[in-house]
Amino acid sequence: MAAFAGPEIERLIGLLSKLPGMGPRSARRAALALLKRREQLLSPLAASLAEVADRVVNCRMCGAPDTRDPCSICSDPNRDQSLICVVEDAGALWAMERAGAFRGRYHLLGGLLSALDGRGPDALRIKALVERLEPGEVKEVILALPATVDGQTTAHYLAERVSAAGTQVTSLARGVPVGGELDWLDDGTIAQALRARRPA
Amino acid sequence: MAAFAGPEIERLIGLLSKLPGMGPRSARRAALALLKRREQLLSPLAASLAEVADRVVNCRMCGAPDTRDPCSICSDPNRDQSLICVVEDAGALWAMERAGAFRGRYHLLGGLLSALDGRGPDALRIKALVERLEPGEVKEVILALPATVDGQTTAHYLAERVSAAGTQVTSLARGVPVGGELDWLDDGTIAQALRARRPA
Repeated sequence: MAAFAGPEIERLIGLLSKLPGMGPRSARRAALALLKRREQLLSPLAASLAEVADRVVNCRMCGAPDTRDPCSICSDPNRDQSLICVVEDAGALWAMERAGAFRGRYHLLGGLLSALDGRGPDALRIKALVERLEPGEVKEVILALPATVDGQTTAHYLAERVSAAGTQVTSLARGVPVGGELDWLDDGTIAQALRARRPA
Repeated sequence: MAAFAGPEIERLIGLLSKLPGMGPRSARRAALALLKRREQLLSPLAASLAEVADRVVNCRMCGAPDTRDPCSICSDPNRDQSLICVVEDAGALWAMERAGAFRGRYHLLGGLLSALDGRGPDALRIKALVERLEPGEVKEVILALPATVDGQTTAHYLAERVSAAGTQVTSLARGVPVGGELDWLDDGTIAQALRARRPA
């Protein structure tokens, strides 16, 4: 891109375009919006990013990003210490917390096993998970991983490792989502929901 | 939103969701991407925003955001001083510069007249434009405003003000865009292109 907007603004546009869902065009629109609303948006966003960069660390226990270490969930005495929910990343953790149905603690893998991307067990926080099981306080590990090839490969691998450590492993149920019309569901989900049918 | 991600991250998500094209969900995805790539994306973006907030000012002549004042276009001796192109904002200026067809200078209005939003002439940089015409160096003012109701209202108003100052006023031509199929064009554009037809 030509440097008519000045190198500082071009650099900002380049960085904004690396955010998910942003392209060169939407990054330019975002930069424009920031330049138009300097006091209300540009300066607060700069300060907020600097604060997050400075103060947010990954929890030594679960790996979740937080300003506290251990994080607010791991250091909450009201969370059940005998349950660990294994998730891919902070986005999955936030989704679980929004659902508000889980009262245990988490473990973030930091990704999934992927043959394609050459990501093996050592690239994930699997050793840290097994170490958390050693004291024997954890009764159950719940795998909340995506229903994709990589997610299921990772789940299979983890199920073996956690069983070998003598802890019970479960997975989130598969089935018809709440509000889901059968007509719109893919065949795989319908087949799994049928196999996992329960007394009504 | 619940504060399970910590107030700092929640604040960042809130600010990101104010960017154009971002909603609460995509802002969360963006925050997640930033947290995953702290060294490559989070810290550079924080530094870039701080630099833009610190160093970018609006040019005292044309109003364009730049680290220089007068901006790099206004202080370029190779740009034709007798031509001023009036645009709504920096986004329109960047679009004109990308086209690379204009060798004069610009004047940013900072918005458009809008009865609906209660934005009158005093809210725009119109007085500054008329003052730039007074020395008599400017021979032509080219209005490059959007072909919307507000854009055309603003163009009409400016045409009168600039004519009254004794300077010629022109507007960007309307017609079939390059590569435009007639079948896909709206009727108004076709009608305008027909009225403005030229010898082939």
